Amino acid sequence: MTRAAASLVLVLVALSSTFTKYVPKSGQRIPQSLSRGWGDQLNWAQTYEEALFLSRSRNKPLMVLFLLEDCPHSQALKQAFANDDEIQRTLDEDFVVLNLMQETGDQHLSPDGQYVPRIVFVDPSMTVRDDIVGPYSNRLYTYEPTDMKHLLENMKKAKKLLKHNEI
Amino acid sequence: MTRAAASLVLVLVALSSTFTKYVPKSGQRIPQSLSRGWGDQLNWAQTYEEALFLSRSRNKPLMVLFLLEDCPHSQALKQAFANDDEIQRTLDEDFVVLNLMQETGDQHLSPDGQYVPRIVFVDPSMTVRDDIVGPYSNRLYTYEPTDMKHLLENMKKAKKLLKHNEI
Repeated sequence: MTRAAASLVLVLVALSSTFTKYVPKSGQRIPQSLSRGWGDQLNWAQTYEEALFLSRSRNKPLMVLFLLEDCPHSQALKQAFANDDEIQRTLDEDFVVLNLMQETGDQHLSPDGQYVPRIVFVDPSMTVRDDIVGPYSNRLYTYEPTDMKHLLENMKKAKKLLKHNEI
Repeated sequence: MTRAAASLVLVLVALSSTFTKYVPKSGQRIPQSLSRGWGDQLNWAQTYEEALFLSRSRNKPLMVLFLLEDCPHSQALKQAFANDDEIQRTLDEDFVVLNLMQETGDQHLSPDGQYVPRIVFVDPSMTVRDDIVGPYSNRLYTYEPTDMKHLLENMKKAKKLLKHNEI
């Protein structure tokens, strides 16, 4: 499908959704996306359980992004993250991706506390890679918009799967 | 915002997303929606944890929908469900909604087994309402497309919160 045809499909989808029966009193809403703006072209997992399942079955590392929509740090990082071509391509081809606005019950995902934005990698063996950290010693798993190179290096580390290292 | 203006916004959003940098080799994708077609105008929770939090804080019952996208029964039910104006309005105004393609760790959500489609209500007190069942004795929490009235009656039962009943 060409990009022009894809655009047309997107427009038709957007238009068709305006003809659904129920419209809230406050007016038509734009359907929520699973990407939340962090990469509309990525296939996001919905839940941690689903993400773990996909990571194991595809033998691909999982990136878990914790964010809040009303957090200016999250929003600033989102811009850099979503517009970085290499990060997006690598995530699409080699990772399972999940973004969450709510903490899970798994405390391994918050090795140094619960804060946003926070990026934690999980190996397909379901081991949280708490050794893969960002550049800040006070919050090991956070990144600033200027840290995309550091993040990309960390993604390369995550791609070296633990099982392979052990062999 | 008028419906025409809302349509325009949707078209612009669709168009703008065609100008993002990264495009998968297989071609532009339509961003995934949290509704999965079960009600584009509803504010869907993403995870069970988030849904429980919203249900408690808003004192509204939670509807959990288990579905699979390649299951013909789920797809048939989706049509009836998404096009039922009263169900959609009631869910939007009085419920927290969550749809899941993956089971959670909470076995209370599968009182008679794990199957799809399955609809389970949870009280804001975080009690699974296993007393609210559909018309089929073999699979208590499933519904057919013709059962929307039964489902609506069950939604009314779920709206009578357990705490209120106890007073």
